[in-house]
Amino acid sequence: MAAAIDFYFDFSSPYGYIAAAKVEALAAKHGRGVNWRPILLGAAMKVTGGAPLPQIPLKGDYAKRDFVRSAKFHGVPFRIPSSFPISTIAAVRAFYWAQGKDPARALALAKALYSAYFADDVDISRVEEVIRIAAGVGFKAEDVAAGVADQAVKDKTKAEVDAAIAKGVFGSPFIVIDGEAFWGMDRLDQAEKWLTTGGW
Amino acid sequence: MAAAIDFYFDFSSPYGYIAAAKVEALAAKHGRGVNWRPILLGAAMKVTGGAPLPQIPLKGDYAKRDFVRSAKFHGVPFRIPSSFPISTIAAVRAFYWAQGKDPARALALAKALYSAYFADDVDISRVEEVIRIAAGVGFKAEDVAAGVADQAVKDKTKAEVDAAIAKGVFGSPFIVIDGEAFWGMDRLDQAEKWLTTGGW
Repeated sequence: MAAAIDFYFDFSSPYGYIAAAKVEALAAKHGRGVNWRPILLGAAMKVTGGAPLPQIPLKGDYAKRDFVRSAKFHGVPFRIPSSFPISTIAAVRAFYWAQGKDPARALALAKALYSAYFADDVDISRVEEVIRIAAGVGFKAEDVAAGVADQAVKDKTKAEVDAAIAKGVFGSPFIVIDGEAFWGMDRLDQAEKWLTTGGW
Repeated sequence: MAAAIDFYFDFSSPYGYIAAAKVEALAAKHGRGVNWRPILLGAAMKVTGGAPLPQIPLKGDYAKRDFVRSAKFHGVPFRIPSSFPISTIAAVRAFYWAQGKDPARALALAKALYSAYFADDVDISRVEEVIRIAAGVGFKAEDVAAGVADQAVKDKTKAEVDAAIAKGVFGSPFIVIDGEAFWGMDRLDQAEKWLTTGGW
């Protein structure tokens, strides 16, 4: 079986959320798995000098419209959250903790976190909400609470984010197929062709 | 006939160049014309705080790869010019001067400028090259030389760029259909659906 696709994303990224709804079907169609790799865009922005889209003059207003329009275009339930963007460090730590315990449930957790934030307007910057959501996919609340506070999990999270940036990841979504990088939900068309043809 | 599409672009923008190869067929399919509106991204970046893609850490390296890959994906001849990005003020002034003289030839000039820069590696920041290219589409070289130096043409160019920014244009390509804005060659899919359905 061909190597899994690396799917980098930020839990506070609408375009990451839209891509998350599509990446598994895309990969499966071509006999590939998906490595879900949440990152922290804020750390990447320290390198690129970028800023969250909503804060940028002109681009921010466009982006808010484009999020809503793009979600509808791709058939994904979406609303701009009341708090946006947010810190997602608790969500990312919970994910990497969960991955060490039960990879299948960690994947369910990632999807549930995205859905809570962008479909149901739950503020997933709050650790209590992350714990509640993790409990909803079958983890014990007290285990999650201990996990996200564990120094080893904090270190693992930092190592994952640093490794992504070291590999050139700077945006969300950011998909890597056999070493070839595709940034943006709007590169899924090229990613699909790449999977089909092996490159051009 | 429905209103023409506004097509904003920068002559130094690879994604604008790729979109330029597609926008007329897209519009014509839906019974629309296209208003070609060259802008100066540098002026917009003063508002958004942006920087040319190649200068941005991580993103710059990705962009260079993505330009080449995207041009191939869309079937457009392309090479990264020896000088990139460049100032395109002479090209923009020549275009607006030409538009006042002969709109059809102005359109031919826009296409010839893009092709010269991105297919043939001609440095269109040089006014002599702009004049030569304009002569190639049927303008008299001395008229073009006088035109790009004319204060009224300089004022018209500034007014067009300022008006675009005032309307929220900040990128290239940037397409506006009946008031709805689509930024990026990767929004042609949504633009197409918008033309078909009238919105969603």
